[in-house]
Amino acid sequence: MAFESKIKTIEWVNNVSRMIDQTILPKEFKTVDIKTCEEMYFAIKNMIVRGAPAIGIAGAHGVALAAIELLKTVNDKTVFLQKLNQKADYLKSSRPTAVNLMWAVEKQMEIAHKTQGSVNDVTKALINNGIKLENEDIEINKRMGDYGAEVVPKGAVILTHCNAGALATVGYGTALGVIRSAFAKDPTIKVFADETRPRQQGARLTTWELTQDGIPTTLITDGMCSYFMSKGMINMVIVGADRIAANGDTANKIGTYTVAIAAKYHNIPFYIAAPLSTIDISIKSGKEIPIEERNHEEVTHINGDWICAKDVNIINPGFDVTPNELITGIITEKGILKPDFTESIKKAFS
Amino acid sequence: MAFESKIKTIEWVNNVSRMIDQTILPKEFKTVDIKTCEEMYFAIKNMIVRGAPAIGIAGAHGVALAAIELLKTVNDKTVFLQKLNQKADYLKSSRPTAVNLMWAVEKQMEIAHKTQGSVNDVTKALINNGIKLENEDIEINKRMGDYGAEVVPKGAVILTHCNAGALATVGYGTALGVIRSAFAKDPTIKVFADETRPRQQGARLTTWELTQDGIPTTLITDGMCSYFMSKGMINMVIVGADRIAANGDTANKIGTYTVAIAAKYHNIPFYIAAPLSTIDISIKSGKEIPIEERNHEEVTHINGDWICAKDVNIINPGFDVTPNELITGIITEKGILKPDFTESIKKAFS
Repeated sequence: MAFESKIKTIEWVNNVSRMIDQTILPKEFKTVDIKTCEEMYFAIKNMIVRGAPAIGIAGAHGVALAAIELLKTVNDKTVFLQKLNQKADYLKSSRPTAVNLMWAVEKQMEIAHKTQGSVNDVTKALINNGIKLENEDIEINKRMGDYGAEVVPKGAVILTHCNAGALATVGYGTALGVIRSAFAKDPTIKVFADETRPRQQGARLTTWELTQDGIPTTLITDGMCSYFMSKGMINMVIVGADRIAANGDTANKIGTYTVAIAAKYHNIPFYIAAPLSTIDISIKSGKEIPIEERNHEEVTHINGDWICAKDVNIINPGFDVTPNELITGIITEKGILKPDFTESIKKAFS
Repeated sequence: MAFESKIKTIEWVNNVSRMIDQTILPKEFKTVDIKTCEEMYFAIKNMIVRGAPAIGIAGAHGVALAAIELLKTVNDKTVFLQKLNQKADYLKSSRPTAVNLMWAVEKQMEIAHKTQGSVNDVTKALINNGIKLENEDIEINKRMGDYGAEVVPKGAVILTHCNAGALATVGYGTALGVIRSAFAKDPTIKVFADETRPRQQGARLTTWELTQDGIPTTLITDGMCSYFMSKGMINMVIVGADRIAANGDTANKIGTYTVAIAAKYHNIPFYIAAPLSTIDISIKSGKEIPIEERNHEEVTHINGDWICAKDVNIINPGFDVTPNELITGIITEKGILKPDFTESIKKAFS
């Protein structure tokens, strides 16, 4: 049963990519129109759009925007495709960890190379495929929601980390999509949202989108999860993913791994919700997933203001890897994958 | 080997209690003079002074300040002691979790009741005992530092949570006292400091006091600890305590329990550093330790600004309890207590 969310995170409208500016939520709700490939690069890098599936769509839109620009000056198809390839590589370099970005940009490049006809035809095909991926994202999320809702116990309190919601996708959500579908069946479901320092996506985005949709949400700081688990106040954990290795090891927002360890200690089920496009079967284990190192101000500043001594050292990994042994199941659009993940992932891709 | 810290957190000077205002660090360094028992109540409640041992001394000073006030209007010793008792109870109610506050206020009341002579004599005795407790606190910290330094491996990277430093004591520290003593022996020691949301004592206070003393410090957000543990970048954890039960279960700043679970998962030693006055042998286990629920703005606001949706629910426990099974040792002024803690604590008190 699907729940209708009011949120449309990213959408192709009149040859621009319209997206909610997630850097100013929850204080201000504003959309921005991204008109060029360069603007898209910075929108992804600076997290105006974020969340693995959403930046996948952003990447797909970015390739279409690049084609529209190239069309103005390049008529030769070979040169066109060559230049488009460069733009695609540039887009892929905006953020290194989420595999959906690489996946969607590469899907577009396949379309570009196989489309017959003029550079105009190629551009039209890229626009149409961008819109198709958009629609598919919502469909996939809703299928994941249906599968995931089946493992949510009646009246469950679900902890989530970061934002794997409508705001991380086109408009429904992965982890929060499962929560939306579960809530549609059982309105006694409640959510605990980790703040998710340093960027506070849990506080800023998850509390905003869940309360917008009327789902009761308690905000906690990242260190509190074990306290509430020990009190029996959390029944399960569902989080998203930025990249999943062939063995199920899962890169997600920094802090996820700590939550997974705490869940294991308290015997609480820990689920990943992610589309198959987040699974990178080309890598064997989480050890091979590149971890983005983000800028230090994310840790030293909040709302533009210093929060610590000035001569402190900072290391700011954007993601961590949760080993497969801590994961109860991976909720996908093809059902819930269970351990042994190497086997179940192989089967899902066959 | 003791390291000389430059920090004097709380000090009896000319019949006032002079303390560093910890609510404005690290932006501003300012001391405030607390002149009455009521001012002391609010200084403790609003965390101008914080940290279990420091609020113990603040409580002792508070009783002396109450006596100085009463002296102006009450000459009858029975009435004086009766009124002083009320003030003592009032002071003890300022914060419920840290047992050192109860311990120090009760120590003062024992002195008050047993001192011969006039109300003037009682007041003098309370002032002198407040100063004595101050000096003892530093001595005790240094003894703990010596014991603790013995279990710090050469070149260790030590993770700490919250602030159990000079700023949490009179001027040397419990967990950070051990780090100071270890650093005096081995200047290759490094520290990782958890930010410690919601009040950010790690970011605001620990990074300030360690960098003031030239000890290399890396600030991390609370969710990051497991990531660095998994990379082999953290060799041990040392934290303070607000109250330790007779079986070793330890209440400390919220988030400590999560760090302890992560340390256990990675086989990293997890130490508590606390004076015996933090051990409450009257309670059998951590289940009996009252957990202070603090105001919601600590979670919803940073630097006075909202960080989340407005209609979110908040639960804000100030502390959590780490069960004894996760604790490697408790570093005290009488040596390092080891499991079975019920036995080793009993022995330390005999």
